[in-house]
Amino acid sequence: MTTTEKPATPYQVIGTRPVRPDGVDKVTGRAEYGADVKLSGMLYGRVKRSPYAHAVIKRIDASRALALPGVLGVVTGADFPELSNNPVPTIRGPIPERWTREPLIAAGKALYKGHPIAAVAATDPHIAEDALDLIDVEYEVLPPVMSVEQAIAPDTTLLHDPAVTAEIKGLFEPVNGRQSNIARQLEIRMGDVEQGFAESDIVIEREFSTASAHQGYIEPHNATALWNRDGLLTIWTSTQGAFGVRDALAGILKLPVSRVRVVPMEIGGGFGGKIPVYLEPLAAMLSRRTGRPVQITMSRTEVFEASGPTSATQIRVKMGAKRDGTLVAGEVHLAYEAGAYPGAPVPGAARSALAPYNMPHHLVQGFEVVVNKPKVAAYRAPGAPQAEFAVESVVDELAEILKMDPIEFRLQNASRQGVRRSEGVPHGSVGTEQVLQAARDSAHYRSEIHGDKIGRGVATGYWGNGGNESAAYAIVNADGTVTLITGSVDIGGQRASLAMQFAETLGIPYETVKSTVGDTDTIGYTSNTGGSRTTFATGWAVIEAAYDIRGQLIARAAKIWDVEPEKVTYDAGVLREEGGQTMTFKEIARKLAGSGGAIQGRAAVKPSGVGAAVATHICDVHVDTDTGKVTVLRYTAVQDVGKAIHPSYVEGQLQGGAAQGIGMALNEGYVYRADGSMANSSYLDYRMPVANDLPPIETVLVEVPNPGHPYGVRGVGEVPIVPPLAAVANAIYDAIGVRVRHLPASPAVILDELERLKA
Amino acid sequence: MTTTEKPATPYQVIGTRPVRPDGVDKVTGRAEYGADVKLSGMLYGRVKRSPYAHAVIKRIDASRALALPGVLGVVTGADFPELSNNPVPTIRGPIPERWTREPLIAAGKALYKGHPIAAVAATDPHIAEDALDLIDVEYEVLPPVMSVEQAIAPDTTLLHDPAVTAEIKGLFEPVNGRQSNIARQLEIRMGDVEQGFAESDIVIEREFSTASAHQGYIEPHNATALWNRDGLLTIWTSTQGAFGVRDALAGILKLPVSRVRVVPMEIGGGFGGKIPVYLEPLAAMLSRRTGRPVQITMSRTEVFEASGPTSATQIRVKMGAKRDGTLVAGEVHLAYEAGAYPGAPVPGAARSALAPYNMPHHLVQGFEVVVNKPKVAAYRAPGAPQAEFAVESVVDELAEILKMDPIEFRLQNASRQGVRRSEGVPHGSVGTEQVLQAARDSAHYRSEIHGDKIGRGVATGYWGNGGNESAAYAIVNADGTVTLITGSVDIGGQRASLAMQFAETLGIPYETVKSTVGDTDTIGYTSNTGGSRTTFATGWAVIEAAYDIRGQLIARAAKIWDVEPEKVTYDAGVLREEGGQTMTFKEIARKLAGSGGAIQGRAAVKPSGVGAAVATHICDVHVDTDTGKVTVLRYTAVQDVGKAIHPSYVEGQLQGGAAQGIGMALNEGYVYRADGSMANSSYLDYRMPVANDLPPIETVLVEVPNPGHPYGVRGVGEVPIVPPLAAVANAIYDAIGVRVRHLPASPAVILDELERLKA
Repeated sequence: MTTTEKPATPYQVIGTRPVRPDGVDKVTGRAEYGADVKLSGMLYGRVKRSPYAHAVIKRIDASRALALPGVLGVVTGADFPELSNNPVPTIRGPIPERWTREPLIAAGKALYKGHPIAAVAATDPHIAEDALDLIDVEYEVLPPVMSVEQAIAPDTTLLHDPAVTAEIKGLFEPVNGRQSNIARQLEIRMGDVEQGFAESDIVIEREFSTASAHQGYIEPHNATALWNRDGLLTIWTSTQGAFGVRDALAGILKLPVSRVRVVPMEIGGGFGGKIPVYLEPLAAMLSRRTGRPVQITMSRTEVFEASGPTSATQIRVKMGAKRDGTLVAGEVHLAYEAGAYPGAPVPGAARSALAPYNMPHHLVQGFEVVVNKPKVAAYRAPGAPQAEFAVESVVDELAEILKMDPIEFRLQNASRQGVRRSEGVPHGSVGTEQVLQAARDSAHYRSEIHGDKIGRGVATGYWGNGGNESAAYAIVNADGTVTLITGSVDIGGQRASLAMQFAETLGIPYETVKSTVGDTDTIGYTSNTGGSRTTFATGWAVIEAAYDIRGQLIARAAKIWDVEPEKVTYDAGVLREEGGQTMTFKEIARKLAGSGGAIQGRAAVKPSGVGAAVATHICDVHVDTDTGKVTVLRYTAVQDVGKAIHPSYVEGQLQGGAAQGIGMALNEGYVYRADGSMANSSYLDYRMPVANDLPPIETVLVEVPNPGHPYGVRGVGEVPIVPPLAAVANAIYDAIGVRVRHLPASPAVILDELERLKA
Repeated sequence: MTTTEKPATPYQVIGTRPVRPDGVDKVTGRAEYGADVKLSGMLYGRVKRSPYAHAVIKRIDASRALALPGVLGVVTGADFPELSNNPVPTIRGPIPERWTREPLIAAGKALYKGHPIAAVAATDPHIAEDALDLIDVEYEVLPPVMSVEQAIAPDTTLLHDPAVTAEIKGLFEPVNGRQSNIARQLEIRMGDVEQGFAESDIVIEREFSTASAHQGYIEPHNATALWNRDGLLTIWTSTQGAFGVRDALAGILKLPVSRVRVVPMEIGGGFGGKIPVYLEPLAAMLSRRTGRPVQITMSRTEVFEASGPTSATQIRVKMGAKRDGTLVAGEVHLAYEAGAYPGAPVPGAARSALAPYNMPHHLVQGFEVVVNKPKVAAYRAPGAPQAEFAVESVVDELAEILKMDPIEFRLQNASRQGVRRSEGVPHGSVGTEQVLQAARDSAHYRSEIHGDKIGRGVATGYWGNGGNESAAYAIVNADGTVTLITGSVDIGGQRASLAMQFAETLGIPYETVKSTVGDTDTIGYTSNTGGSRTTFATGWAVIEAAYDIRGQLIARAAKIWDVEPEKVTYDAGVLREEGGQTMTFKEIARKLAGSGGAIQGRAAVKPSGVGAAVATHICDVHVDTDTGKVTVLRYTAVQDVGKAIHPSYVEGQLQGGAAQGIGMALNEGYVYRADGSMANSSYLDYRMPVANDLPPIETVLVEVPNPGHPYGVRGVGEVPIVPPLAAVANAIYDAIGVRVRHLPASPAVILDELERLKA
């Protein structure tokens, strides 16, 4: 099902497909997840949540709950340290300090249904559950703001106190002199779009919208906290980044980072949604209150209603092209819902939207509004799938009007190294052309499609990827193996991809590297597993740690041989002395204890040279016009992966991203009632594709090495979710002539569009 | 109660008395010991032990036990990998590989009462206990060999198959052409003792004996094992050295060390007795058999009967002196019981016995015999307390005959740097004279003693201390703190003493160093906490790790300031640039993320330059001649501690060692019945001194810096147990004129001696 374009490789380990270190544990059920943590005297916590999407909290009375035998503590927002309105730096611009915590436990006002009001700890989870009903809360219910339209209506209710928002620089800038629900606006300009449209032979402008979608990780959020009497707080949790959790807790609880230890357990999926903290601060405060360890886990409904999905969006795209197929100008308007607090992924969407193409004139305008929904979180290439859905739908329409093959049209306009992106910055090494060529030449695209109501769509996507900080520490064992410790939570097989780069660098077998994930007290600072950064940046750290070991091995061999270090070389796992003496890695490992002690390597990096990723997906669908059901018949993901360290896990990323994107295209979407409650907060009603909904996803790995990494690695994890929305929509059009501009394209949407087409 | 000779100090941190990092956890009961480990699906193991001290195992039938509901597995010696007779290197000479395991689970023969025959794992500890009785074992009982006399009698029973012992080089050398129970003999000669005795004016020869004594750690042995389906074995245990356990298990189970991860839990005392493995291999095999984690803990009786106490001994000492008080010759014969397998601490005893003195003629002969008792283990300065008891009793008698003050007599003959020890090697820096002078000048020694049957004794002891391998890894946190990871299990406050040396080296406050103990997968190879080595050798590793960080800080500051690294210095926690710019450690810590990533330090050392330790103790006793009870009235421990990093914890070592030595002098001893069973295997009957048995132990810290360590550290933990046996015995003589030559000097022994004196 899968083809790999495999160049002749100079590598021994990189490019092979060994078993991941956590494989056996995961298939035998032995792997320890956050909910498996058991501590002596542990209490169980539960969260009392707002039943209203928008309400003033007049009074909270926990006395009846506290009187219930087995209940040992209750905390509310009032128990947390006071936080200021001062902005704190976050990955997406400054957010006031108070807004890092208020989404987690309400302060004065509940801003979404499911907003935590209080948390209770009891000796038994059932007692904790019962205690929730005994916490009396008096609300003053306000009208909920549930869409961009409602949020920006002149007579709308404001979510946040204008006296507060007016204080905060860079957010909630006054609109027409008044505070509003518009949290942030941005504009990126290159060239002059008006001039570009004037020079164009064809100009199309279309409007699109998408629903909120959830990352749908299998494992719900959980946190276990022990706030010890010595003032040290330990957290066991399911997270994409132990250090990120440490930083967040230190901020929210006003502790120095060194007072907090975060132990990342195995993680059952994250996709960006396990970067924020939810339960950790509540468990921590309950532990401080009770003097006991406290564990809280979410139900699936809590995950849907009170963790962070991606934004619902409204997008307008206008593009102009010449008759010869040259794109001239693109204009993109992005309106993203942020949920109840600012933080929608508009900047990433804005940078990605037009990035696959070479056009002189760009204008991207974005704004985000606050609405009475849970605060959005990152979701795999945050914001880009929605933006690219709109852009690639328009590109498809332009190709049709120009009577060009959609891939040839894209190829003609493909961005390449040196061409400027929307922000005016030239692209680095980018594989847009190679990916489009590989897609055009793929078996799938060359195949014919036959049959009624069957169509094919293609779409391209771009994501810039992340770099950030990573550390590595490695210990040479006497048996010739190496224990490798990194701080990157392993979601997609990183323990393997990191061990492989380390083994390759030292010229030792993969099987001899025991690759483990440390906690915040056992390894140097490492940023989140996210931004497609781990195999790239933490990979670089392990390479540097291997170099550190190599240097020490050379010095040690020189000492053992009693020669100058300059006379010793290390290559492919063998030390060589000018005089002809040799020693393998395994041989010197045995001699370390007798010649001065163990050898350890360490490195910490913050690499620039991040390689951007481009993907083109090809999708064949059948549409049942009686029922509106769309069936994906064949699907191929073509992607520039830089250098695939472990091709199977790279393919897995492409397949997983495609499946999630198809879900967003066809089925997945939050459905809200007018009162602000979610109508489909279970896996039964929130319809994610399961195995029998999809064909096997075919993959084509295109390897355009990233010159910014020793082995050419570029991030691969996020961009595969970018093209599917448009690829599916374009295939539906090809099948039945309906341009779907609202996602998910559920049967109801398809039938409506068919009605409209008939009318 | 305590005086410290404190020189003017150049140090900011060293020499202060901060709180240890584990203090709160230990006083609040939160510290996690091995028996606190709880794993999903964990089974409970129990050990079926031989009721006979010496018996052939004819048959083991576990079928009835396996039929008991809840019993999931049984293992016997036959389930373990075959091990050879080839010697493997150990800390005390070569031991056949098979004898590393057979003490832990019998193979063919039970060699002591309590020898494990089988181990069972069940879903509940009570079921496991019940199952023991359902394991049917058929024995052929043999006469037990219970003393040196019995072991060397011509018609004795041999414990080990002569066909096996004849194969092993260096052990069980034939005696008169025949295999025997004499496991090993040694001889150290310097000069010519015969000539020495001929030149002496006074020659005394005396015989002594001591009983086996147990280390008496509060926490019994425990082990939890998970042998995972991926072939990786994880062990949680109470041990003095995680890497030592790893090495032992790898040998016994025939696994590469990297397949074994050992997590050292908090330890409730060890004193040498928690260096060997006992339960770990049994738990591991049961886990492999059942596919589940298995936990085994010992009862107190099992600890007494089946872990390793110190040797019972018989010692003969002959010494000669001139009228002017000059010691001329010393001859020491050491006969030590090894228990059922070779490994008695004869070499350490032999090297220490005469080391406090400068004599031209030395002869030390030692041998060890195997007897039907549990194999002995290390116990704080292993072997030396017994040898020094004998030597210092004779020295006391010589001083009396010479009518010299016992301290002045010792001072006149004190060993010093450059003087050769028994092995002919010259002493390095050694504080014998300074310690004796401090003892002579102490308030205690200068005080008068009054009263009937009250006496004072002094004794000196020597211990060479250990060096060996240590690693350290340190992470600079953004808040200006450092997480410090070492592999040394913390028994006596090492987390503090290591953090202090690290903080001193970097010029940062102690409180900013978070000092933790890693496991075998998180830190480089580190030898056991034992041999008084940890604050010395692991201290050196943390100093080197601090240097590694200092170098990187200088490079980073140079980068931030855009100057050459040569222009930057680091002193007392402050970076300085020639042009006058400065930056504190805390300031640069905050800037690391923005200037290239985290900084980590690493070091691994195997230092030579170990500093030997000398102690002189002063003891006042009252003897009740009606009951035979000896009461210690006042006790002072004077010791060369090199440089006391944390004086309180050094004092604690002196006090603890003195208390244990007093216990061996007065009360503690294994009592065996003729059938080879132990008569006093409980704390009720095995009489250790408790708080109200002893006066506060006064300490005098003499600081003769060890030139072999950056801060002058020398090991302090072991030597304080060496002098008390003789100090107490000499005080008893001073009080009532009885020379006690068998220890413990229990009331019965005292009354017997008084009877003999009268007769």
